[in-house]
Amino acid sequence: VSAADELVNTRDWERAARSVLAPGVYGYYAGGAGDERTLHDNRRAFRRWRLRPRMLVDVSEVTTECTVLGARSSMPLLVAPTALHKLAHPERELATARAAARAGTVMCLSTIATSTPAEVTAAAPEARRWFQVYVFRDRGVTKAFVDEAVDGGYEALVLTVDAPLFGHRERDLRTGFVVPPEMAVPSFTAAVGGPVAATAAEIAEQFDPTLSWRDVEALATESRLPVLVKGVLTAEDARLARDHGAAGIVVSNHGGRQLDGVPASLDVLPEVVEAVGDDLEVLMDGGVRRGTDVLVALALGARAVLIGRPVLWGLAVAGEEGVLRVLEQLRLELERALALCGCPSPAAVTAAYVAPASRS
Amino acid sequence: VSAADELVNTRDWERAARSVLAPGVYGYYAGGAGDERTLHDNRRAFRRWRLRPRMLVDVSEVTTECTVLGARSSMPLLVAPTALHKLAHPERELATARAAARAGTVMCLSTIATSTPAEVTAAAPEARRWFQVYVFRDRGVTKAFVDEAVDGGYEALVLTVDAPLFGHRERDLRTGFVVPPEMAVPSFTAAVGGPVAATAAEIAEQFDPTLSWRDVEALATESRLPVLVKGVLTAEDARLARDHGAAGIVVSNHGGRQLDGVPASLDVLPEVVEAVGDDLEVLMDGGVRRGTDVLVALALGARAVLIGRPVLWGLAVAGEEGVLRVLEQLRLELERALALCGCPSPAAVTAAYVAPASRS
Amino acid sequence: VSAADELVNTRDWERAARSVLAPGVYGYYAGGAGDERTLHDNRRAFRRWRLRPRMLVDVSEVTTECTVLGARSSMPLLVAPTALHKLAHPERELATARAAARAGTVMCLSTIATSTPAEVTAAAPEARRWFQVYVFRDRGVTKAFVDEAVDGGYEALVLTVDAPLFGHRERDLRTGFVVPPEMAVPSFTAAVGGPVAATAAEIAEQFDPTLSWRDVEALATESRLPVLVKGVLTAEDARLARDHGAAGIVVSNHGGRQLDGVPASLDVLPEVVEAVGDDLEVLMDGGVRRGTDVLVALALGARAVLIGRPVLWGLAVAGEEGVLRVLEQLRLELERALALCGCPSPAAVTAAYVAPASRS
Amino acid sequence: VSAADELVNTRDWERAARSVLAPGVYGYYAGGAGDERTLHDNRRAFRRWRLRPRMLVDVSEVTTECTVLGARSSMPLLVAPTALHKLAHPERELATARAAARAGTVMCLSTIATSTPAEVTAAAPEARRWFQVYVFRDRGVTKAFVDEAVDGGYEALVLTVDAPLFGHRERDLRTGFVVPPEMAVPSFTAAVGGPVAATAAEIAEQFDPTLSWRDVEALATESRLPVLVKGVLTAEDARLARDHGAAGIVVSNHGGRQLDGVPASLDVLPEVVEAVGDDLEVLMDGGVRRGTDVLVALALGARAVLIGRPVLWGLAVAGEEGVLRVLEQLRLELERALALCGCPSPAAVTAAYVAPASRS
Repeated sequence: VSAADELVNTRDWERAARSVLAPGVYGYYAGGAGDERTLHDNRRAFRRWRLRPRMLVDVSEVTTECTVLGARSSMPLLVAPTALHKLAHPERELATARAAARAGTVMCLSTIATSTPAEVTAAAPEARRWFQVYVFRDRGVTKAFVDEAVDGGYEALVLTVDAPLFGHRERDLRTGFVVPPEMAVPSFTAAVGGPVAATAAEIAEQFDPTLSWRDVEALATESRLPVLVKGVLTAEDARLARDHGAAGIVVSNHGGRQLDGVPASLDVLPEVVEAVGDDLEVLMDGGVRRGTDVLVALALGARAVLIGRPVLWGLAVAGEEGVLRVLEQLRLELERALALCGCPSPAAVTAAYVAPASRS
Repeated sequence: VSAADELVNTRDWERAARSVLAPGVYGYYAGGAGDERTLHDNRRAFRRWRLRPRMLVDVSEVTTECTVLGARSSMPLLVAPTALHKLAHPERELATARAAARAGTVMCLSTIATSTPAEVTAAAPEARRWFQVYVFRDRGVTKAFVDEAVDGGYEALVLTVDAPLFGHRERDLRTGFVVPPEMAVPSFTAAVGGPVAATAAEIAEQFDPTLSWRDVEALATESRLPVLVKGVLTAEDARLARDHGAAGIVVSNHGGRQLDGVPASLDVLPEVVEAVGDDLEVLMDGGVRRGTDVLVALALGARAVLIGRPVLWGLAVAGEEGVLRVLEQLRLELERALALCGCPSPAAVTAAYVAPASRS
Repeated sequence: VSAADELVNTRDWERAARSVLAPGVYGYYAGGAGDERTLHDNRRAFRRWRLRPRMLVDVSEVTTECTVLGARSSMPLLVAPTALHKLAHPERELATARAAARAGTVMCLSTIATSTPAEVTAAAPEARRWFQVYVFRDRGVTKAFVDEAVDGGYEALVLTVDAPLFGHRERDLRTGFVVPPEMAVPSFTAAVGGPVAATAAEIAEQFDPTLSWRDVEALATESRLPVLVKGVLTAEDARLARDHGAAGIVVSNHGGRQLDGVPASLDVLPEVVEAVGDDLEVLMDGGVRRGTDVLVALALGARAVLIGRPVLWGLAVAGEEGVLRVLEQLRLELERALALCGCPSPAAVTAAYVAPASRS
Repeated sequence: VSAADELVNTRDWERAARSVLAPGVYGYYAGGAGDERTLHDNRRAFRRWRLRPRMLVDVSEVTTECTVLGARSSMPLLVAPTALHKLAHPERELATARAAARAGTVMCLSTIATSTPAEVTAAAPEARRWFQVYVFRDRGVTKAFVDEAVDGGYEALVLTVDAPLFGHRERDLRTGFVVPPEMAVPSFTAAVGGPVAATAAEIAEQFDPTLSWRDVEALATESRLPVLVKGVLTAEDARLARDHGAAGIVVSNHGGRQLDGVPASLDVLPEVVEAVGDDLEVLMDGGVRRGTDVLVALALGARAVLIGRPVLWGLAVAGEEGVLRVLEQLRLELERALALCGCPSPAAVTAAYVAPASRS
C-alpha cells in the first residue's frame, strides 16, 4: 500500500503535494493575489448552494459522459491551463496530457508551459487538446505558438483576458520564488530572446496590455479554431465576447491569482449564463474540488468545469498516474453524485437540482 | 454514582460512547458523506429557528403523548432504523427494542440489522415495531424479511429510497472499517449466500438501483401495511410518494451519510409539509439532539421525529438501560420545553410557536 | 491601587468575580439553560444594531436621568431581581440595595432573596424599591411577602411569568450546586416549613404552575401596586398583559436560564413595543453590558433596562462598593454614548438613532 | 536587504511598528473605543463588496492621478490627520509631510500635532497641506492656529465634529498611557497655559462641547478656506453640512476611536453620497488598507480616501522613508487594481465596478 492509496480526496492530494514540493513552488501554485479572499471565496461559493436530489429514478446506468464544443468528453471536467508543470514533475505537461488522454477528457495546455504544443501532441496524440493563449507584446511569438497548436490538431484556443498585468502575489514576494533558466519556458525564451531566470511577474510583463476585443475576432479568423474567452466575470463582457465571435466563455478569476476582491467564479456564473447561455458554451473554473461541485456548476448552467491545482497536486505526488487518479476520483465522485441525485447523465442536470443554501 | 449518571445530554452520551467503541465503529456511526457538511448542517438547522413561548398557560398537566400512524406513542420521538447494533453492544437490536418498549415509543428495525425481525418480536413483543426496508437486487430476500415482519406484527414498513448506491464515507476509507463475518447480518448473508466480511459499501452493493415509485405501491399492496417513504428531500418527491400510495414520508438525508451537499432535513421540512402535509403524515430525522429540537420540528409540521445516533450512543455505553435513559432524557427535555412554551401536549404546538432566528 | 481599579468594564468584573466565587456559585449565576444559545444570543443581539450619531448638538449638559413608572431615576438602568445574594457577599441584598440607593436607581428585590423585604427597607429606606414575585403553590406565603413589600413602601411588583417550572441548567447538574440550609431563604423556608438544603430546581418546585392571567389582575387589585409582568417574549402575551391590568412589561428570557432556544430579549423588544408601547411601559433585560446597549434598547422603545449578573459580579468582588462602581461605570458609559450621539438625555433617544447592522 | 524590504503590505508595516513602539503608544494608535467593534467593522466593511472587473480595455497607460477640492493629487488617497507623530518618530509631522510631498498627495495636519502649522510649511512647502481643526473651549487658541495655517498656504480646513468629548478607550486605561510634557503639543500647551503631562482624554477635555453647525459657517467665512466636515455618519448631518457651507464631508467614525457601535464608514458612505454627493465632495476614512479598498470607496461615490494608522506604522518603522513607502505601496496597489478592472484612471470608476458580496 503506497501513501497515494490513502489520498481519498483533493485535500489529501494537496497535503501530499505540499510535502514533496519546494515551499516556493508550492506557494506559487497554491497562492492567490492580495489577501487571498477571492481564492478562498472560490471554494466557499459552492457551499452557498444545496443539491435537491430526486429519488427512485433508475440509476443502474449512470454516465458522466458529455459533449463540450461539439465533441465527447468522458466527463464535464477538463484540465485547466496551468503554468510550468516541470516545477511539479520532470515529465511536465507530457505526463499531464497523457493522464488526460487516459481519463478521456480535454487537456488545455498553457502558453507558459515547460513543453511546446508539438511536444504535447507527440506525447498524447489521442488526447483532446486545447491551447491557452497569452498574447505577448511580440505578436510574432504568439503567432508561432498558435500556428504550432493549429498544426498539432489542437481543437480550440482559450484566450486569457484577465492578465494585462500580473496579480499581486505576496507569497511569491515572501519566498522569493524565481523560475530558474534551466526550467526552459519555450514561449518566454522566444519572447525575451534567450533563457533567463525570471519571476512569474517578469514573465507576465511580456504580455500585451493593449489587447482588445478585436483581437478575439482576429484570433478566431486567423486560426480557424473556436476561441474561448477565459477570465470573464460580468454579463457585460460575456455579451462582448459573444459579439466578437467567441465560441465560448470560461468564467474565471484566474484561481484568485489576479485581483483579490473579485467574485468567486461560481457566484457570477448565473449572471453570465443568463446573458449569453443560449448563444455559446459557458464553462467555469475556480474552487472545484468535489464531484458535487461539478454538479452544482452544471445546474447553474455551465457546460463543463476546469480544474487546475488538483491536477498539479496529482502531478507533483505521482506524475502521470497521480493526475489520472485525481481525475478518476473526481469522475467517480461526480458519477455517484449524479446517481444519488437521480440524474443518469450530466445532460439531465437542470436548475431544479439546486437551491440556495440556508444561511449558516 | 456511575459514570452514566453524569451524562446529562446527548453530547455527553456521544463522548462516552466514543470512549468505549473501536475507532472504526465510532467513525462508521458518527461519520457522514464527503466533507460532512450536510451532517453538520442537520444540527445547525435547528439553530435557524427560535421558539415563541406563551406564558401563564396552566401547565400543571403536561404530556408528551401523541398519535403516530393512528396509534399512541409516549412521545413524538421514535427510534430511527440504524444498522448493525451488535457493533455497539452484544445484546444488539434486542436491547434497543426492549428500551423502546419500556419508553413507550416506536422501534424501527433496520434491514441491515444483526437481529431478525422475528428475534426482535420475541424480545420486545409489547413494543410498537416498524420495519425499515432496503430492497435487495435479489427481491426474494427482501420479500422473506418483509413477510417475517408482517407475521411478527410490525405495524409499518419504512422504505429507504435514498440509497441506490452507497454514500462516499471517507472516515470508513481511512479506518478501513469492515463488518466482520461473525457479526452475522441475516439479510446480507441471505443475499450473498453465506457469511462474509464486508465493508458497508459492499453490503450496499446488494441494494437494487432500479427501484422505482411503482415499487412503493407494490410494497404496500403486497404487505397490506402502511408504507413510509424515507429519504424524501423535495416537494416533488413528496407528491410522488403520496400519489403512489405512501402512508407517510420521512424527510431525511440519511443522517448526512449519503450525498454531502443536500439540505438539512429540517430546512426542507416546510416545503414537504406544504406540499403534502394535509394528505399524509410527515416525519423527519437528522440532527435532533434536544427536546426543543422536537418542538421546532412539530411546529414546522412534523408529526414526529426519529433519532438514530443518540440511541446508538446509549446502547454502546449501557445497553438497554443506556437507550432507555437517552430516550427518557429527551422525553423529559421535550416535556419541559412544552411546559415552558405553554403547550400542554404535542398536539398544541403550531407554527405560531416558532420564528426564524435572527442572523448571528 | 486596588485590583478593582483596573476593572474597566463588566467583562473585567465578571472575570474578577469568577476568581473569588466557588465554581458552583459562579456556574449558578453565569449559566443558562440547555446549550446556552439564548444566553449568548442575548449578548449578540446588541451587535445586530448600529448607532446613528448626530453631530454638532450642544452636549455640554448631558443627563442620564429619566422617569420610570412615573418617578425619577438617575438612569434608565435598574437593578434586576436576582436570587440569593448571600452566595456572593455576606452583606447580601442589603449591600445591593444600599448601592442602588447611592446610585439613584431602582432596586428590584427577588422573592428568592436571602433578605426579607423589610430588612431591605430598613437597610436602604431611601432607595426606590420594587419587589419581584414568584407565586408559590402555597399562596399564603406569597401573600405574606407581598404584604410586607407593600407595607415597606415598595413601589411596584414584578411578577415573573416564565418559570412555571425550572429551566434545564446543566452547569448546576455538573457542579452539584446546592443552596445550603444556613443560606436562609426566608420565602422558601416559609413555603417548606423550615430550613433545608435544596437545589435551585427544588426551590422552583414550590412555584405554582397553574398561574394564569387572572392572577395578574388579582395581584394588582389586592396590592394596589402597579404590576410589571416579567418574562413576556411575544406580542400576543404583551397584549394579554395589558388587557389584564399590567402597568408594564419586562421583555425577558430570564437571562437565558429558563428555555434555551427562545429569542434574545432585544430581538423581540420591537414586536412588544409595537403591540403595546403606547399603552404601558416596556422594559427589558438580558445581555445589557455596555452603556451603548442601553441606548440601543431605548431607541427600540424600552423605557429602561435592568441588569442582573453585572450587579452580582460587583457584589462578589467588593460588596456595596462593587455594585456602586458597576452601576456608575455603566451610567458614565451611557452618558458618554448619549453625548457622542448628540442626545442630551434618554428622552431624546428615538428610533432614528439606530439602524440594523450590516451582516458581518 | 533591510527588514523594511520584506514589508509587502500594511499588515506587515503594523507588525513591524508594533515591535518598535512602546506598548502604550502602540495601544494608543491601534486601539478603538469600547469593545472595538467599530474598529474592526471598518475593515470588514470592505469585504462586503466585490469588484466587477472589465476585460480587454487598453490599460497600457493607467494613472492614479485625480482631482480633490479642485487640485491635482497623485492619487485619491490622502494622509489623514493623526495626533502626536513625535510618539512614532523624532522627526514627527515634518517627516510625514515631506513623505506626502514626495508621494504627491495631500498632508492633513492635526491640531493635536507635535509640530506647528508653520513648522510643517517650512519643512514641506511643496506639499499640498490641509489643517485639521479641533475647536478649543478657548476659541483664541483655535483662531491662532487657523490663522497660522491660512498664512502658511494650507488649502483647506478639516473640522472634526465627532469629538465633543473623548472616546472610551480601554487600551489607554490599561496601559496608563500619558503624553509626557516633553512631547510638546503646541496647541494644548497654548490652551492650558504651559506644558504638562496629560492623558489623551485630558487633552480632549479642552475641546468645546457646545460646537454647533453655525461654527462651520463661521470657520469658512473667517478663514476664507474651504471647510471639510469630518465625522459625519448620517444623511441628515450631511445635508446640514452642505446647508452650512461645507465644501466637503469626510465620512468617518474617527477610526473607531470615539463611539463603539457606530457603523463602519464605508457602510454609510452610500447614504451620504446619495444625500449630498451632487453638491459637494465626499471623502471617507476608516479601514482603508489595500488599493482595492480605495477602488471600492471610489465606486461608492467617494472622491478620495484618507489613511491614518498605516502612515503612522511607516513613520514608526522608518520615518519619512517609511511613510513614503507605505504611500507608494498603496498607490501601486491601486494602479494595479485599476488596470485589472479595466479603469485607466480613478475618474473611470463608477458604481458598475462593484456589487455586494455574497454572504459567506
